[in-house]
Formats: sequence, C-alpha cells, structure tokens
Amino acid sequence: MNFKIIVQYDGTKYFGWQKQPDMVTIQGEIEKALKIMTGKKVGLQGSGRTDAGVHAIAQVANFKCDTNIPVGDFKRGMNGLIGDGINIRSCEIVPDDFHARFSAKGKIYLYRILNSLSVDVFNRQYSWFFHRDLNIDNMQKAANFLIGEHDFKSFENTGSPRNNSIRIVRHAEFVKENDFLLFEIEGNGFLRNMVRNIVGTLIEVGLERFTPSEFRLIFESKDRSNAGTTAPSNGLFLKKVLY
Amino acid sequence: MNFKIIVQYDGTKYFGWQKQPDMVTIQGEIEKALKIMTGKKVGLQGSGRTDAGVHAIAQVANFKCDTNIPVGDFKRGMNGLIGDGINIRSCEIVPDDFHARFSAKGKIYLYRILNSLSVDVFNRQYSWFFHRDLNIDNMQKAANFLIGEHDFKSFENTGSPRNNSIRIVRHAEFVKENDFLLFEIEGNGFLRNMVRNIVGTLIEVGLERFTPSEFRLIFESKDRSNAGTTAPSNGLFLKKVLY
Repeated sequence: MNFKIIVQYDGTKYFGWQKQPDMVTIQGEIEKALKIMTGKKVGLQGSGRTDAGVHAIAQVANFKCDTNIPVGDFKRGMNGLIGDGINIRSCEIVPDDFHARFSAKGKIYLYRILNSLSVDVFNRQYSWFFHRDLNIDNMQKAANFLIGEHDFKSFENTGSPRNNSIRIVRHAEFVKENDFLLFEIEGNGFLRNMVRNIVGTLIEVGLERFTPSEFRLIFESKDRSNAGTTAPSNGLFLKKVLY
Repeated sequence: MNFKIIVQYDGTKYFGWQKQPDMVTIQGEIEKALKIMTGKKVGLQGSGRTDAGVHAIAQVANFKCDTNIPVGDFKRGMNGLIGDGINIRSCEIVPDDFHARFSAKGKIYLYRILNSLSVDVFNRQYSWFFHRDLNIDNMQKAANFLIGEHDFKSFENTGSPRNNSIRIVRHAEFVKENDFLLFEIEGNGFLRNMVRNIVGTLIEVGLERFTPSEFRLIFESKDRSNAGTTAPSNGLFLKKVLY
C-alpha cells in the first residue's frame, strides 16, 4: 500500500526535513514513528527538502508499507509518537504510482515579514522582523519580473547540485496584513534557497537600494553574487504542494 | 529616578516572572540587563507574578535608579542584552510614587483556546488545544456570574498566602475568532491561578458536564475542590495592567 501524508511542522527546533545522523529532523522523526507503528523500517519520501528552521503548513510525503491498522488509527498513532512540533494532518491510501516528489506539479511558498516598529516575541520564530519602512509598490513591481519561465541562477545558492536552473514562476504577490507583509510565490519547482534569496533581494528593493529595473538586471545577470542576502529561514513556510 | 517599563514576553522557556536562584525568569533576566546597563544592582518591581509558561502582552514593572543614559537608549540597550523571548516595549520616567504593583487599579487577562479538529503546531505554545465541541453560549452564561464583587475562593489555588479572596470582576467575555475561542477577563486583582481555574471550570460547562447554574453553585460554594481543573499556562496572557 502507498500512503500519502500531509504534514504541518514548526521548523524551529528541527535540523530541516532531511534525515541526518545524530540530528533531529522531520523526516527522521516520522520514520521513527513509522518503525514503531509497523515494526519495519519504512522509507519516507518528501516532496522536497526544507532547510533547518523552515516551517511547513502542508508538506506532502509518501511511504509504502503493508499494515492492517486502519488509516485513521495509523494517523492518530503517528501523531501520538512524534514530537509536538510536527502534526500529520491527513493520511490516505493512494495509487501505487503516486510519488510525493516526482508527481508534484508545483509548490506554493509563503514568506512572512513582520514590518513594524517593535518586535513581536510571539512571532519571532515565524517571521523576519524588519522595522524600517519598505516601498511595497516597488517590491511588487520587481516581483512581477519573476513571473514566467526563466533561469533563476541569480537566486540559486552556489554549490547546488541542479542540472539546470530554469523554473516557471506562476504567481508572486505581496499582501499586507496588519503589521505583516506576506509574500506568496508559486512555481513548478524551486532551486535551493531560491525563495529566501528572492525575498532577501526584494527587501533591498523595498529599502530603495535597488530599483525594480535594477532588480531585473540582477535577475538577468544569472550571477548570485549580484543579488541580495538570503532571508532568514524562520519566515519561510511551505504552504502547499500541487499535484 | 523612577522608570516604568512595559514588557512583552513569551513565557514558554521561562520559569515565570519571579526571580529564583538558578532559574531563568523574566524578572531575573531584566535585572541582569539593568545591572550591566547601570553598573549597580537594581531591583525590579512587577505588577504581579506570572507563572511558568504564562505570557505577557503588556506586563508593567518599575525600578529606581540614577543614570545619565537617555531613556530611548536605555530601552534599546536593555533589549539588546535580554533574550529574544522578552521585549521591553516602552520605558519612561514616572513620578517617584508610581509603584507597578500598588498603583495598579486592575488587570486584563486573555486566555486562548484553540477549538478545532486538528492541532496547529504554530499555536501549540500559545493556546490550549481542545478538539471537542464546546457550548459557548453556556460558557458565556456561566461567565456572567463572575461579574461583580465576589469571594473567588473556589478558584483560588490552595496554599495561597492571600488575606482574603474577595475580588471585583468587571468584564468576562468569550469571543470566537476563526478556530480560536478567546476569553477576556478584567478585574481589580486576581488570586493565584484564578484565571486558569475559572477557564478550566468553564471548559467543563462548555462540555456540558456542568450547567451554568451548577457553575454558579460551585462558585458560591467557596470550595476549590468543587471546581474544574487548572487550564494550562500556555494559553494565558497578561494583556494589560490598568492604572
């Protein structure tokens, strides 16, 4: 049987999604729970990795195993076994050919910026605090250049193992919500640290260090060293995986 | 000079407000910062204690010291020295006779209940998760009995050092906000664990284990053992101190 799970997690205290020896990771914790539930070693396939500190509202993963445990009990059992920073939101049996990574058609990420004069301690782990004024109109104008099929090399971390850095971005929008500036981006796939590098560069546009046209030139230069800093991991949320 | 500060804190990782040997507490952390800033031991007076895990949106405290540091720099310096779970929101010089505890005319507490079918990992430290249906109308009817001057002995933790347990509650209201049920209560003062004991008993009314009239009888019995459980600390926020 092939199981698909949707997982919410608070990345604060985990060393990212990917299993690593001697590190507490989300994949590692769920696999541990699966082993207890099934008595066997079960490999969990995520839709992709998230880095240390990055959160997920709805990460998707699948695993294959045979069990007589009803699917609802299976979900409750896993939630009882994993730490309180991870929550299996749903668990269902899917066709054998479903693969969390290869079947994915795209992803939506959310980046939360807290743009206010004073810190909010309750959101410090879930946003990037930025007290200076931001020119949001210019940030949106710059973000519009991302839409479409492009080479995103300027926003790819160096040393990344990708064959090519061409991706399609379908949507990139800023929304102001009280003191929060929310950036949502949808694409067919994302390079390593791509969203955080885009946000780090868009912030420079917001601070009027770059104009939207200069942002475009940076983007077209395909040179990471021209772009801005990498935005902190704690503001980033994997919001949805599209199939 | 007499300084008044308004402090926001995430109580998750602190052993409450009150300074204790070998424990990381909010009072202890701020006093440490004050000592570094002024070079002297400065005693901090809070409006009252909060227990381990309880949060504050706006706790108030005062301290007396002489310093040439401008008040804005003083605030920034303290925020730079204390941990990221505490934020001094404001710092001002007040008349000498201002006393955070004795000058207080009342307090407002907020209790957050997450009433949904599934856990929200991002709110697990900031709410009491409760997946069962709650009869909110009955909870409000019961809460209305709290309004006025009463003996709150039924909701006072045993072994508390108070001379008397009579307090005035001015306001006690439930508001539904998406999946959250928010309970706000204002009074001239609160006994030890009073809000959490009230919420723990009102939850039983919500579960229809007690009717509002039975809640009134529990309240009037002045016997803690008749009331419900103590609601968890992580849902409780000191929202405002009134002067």
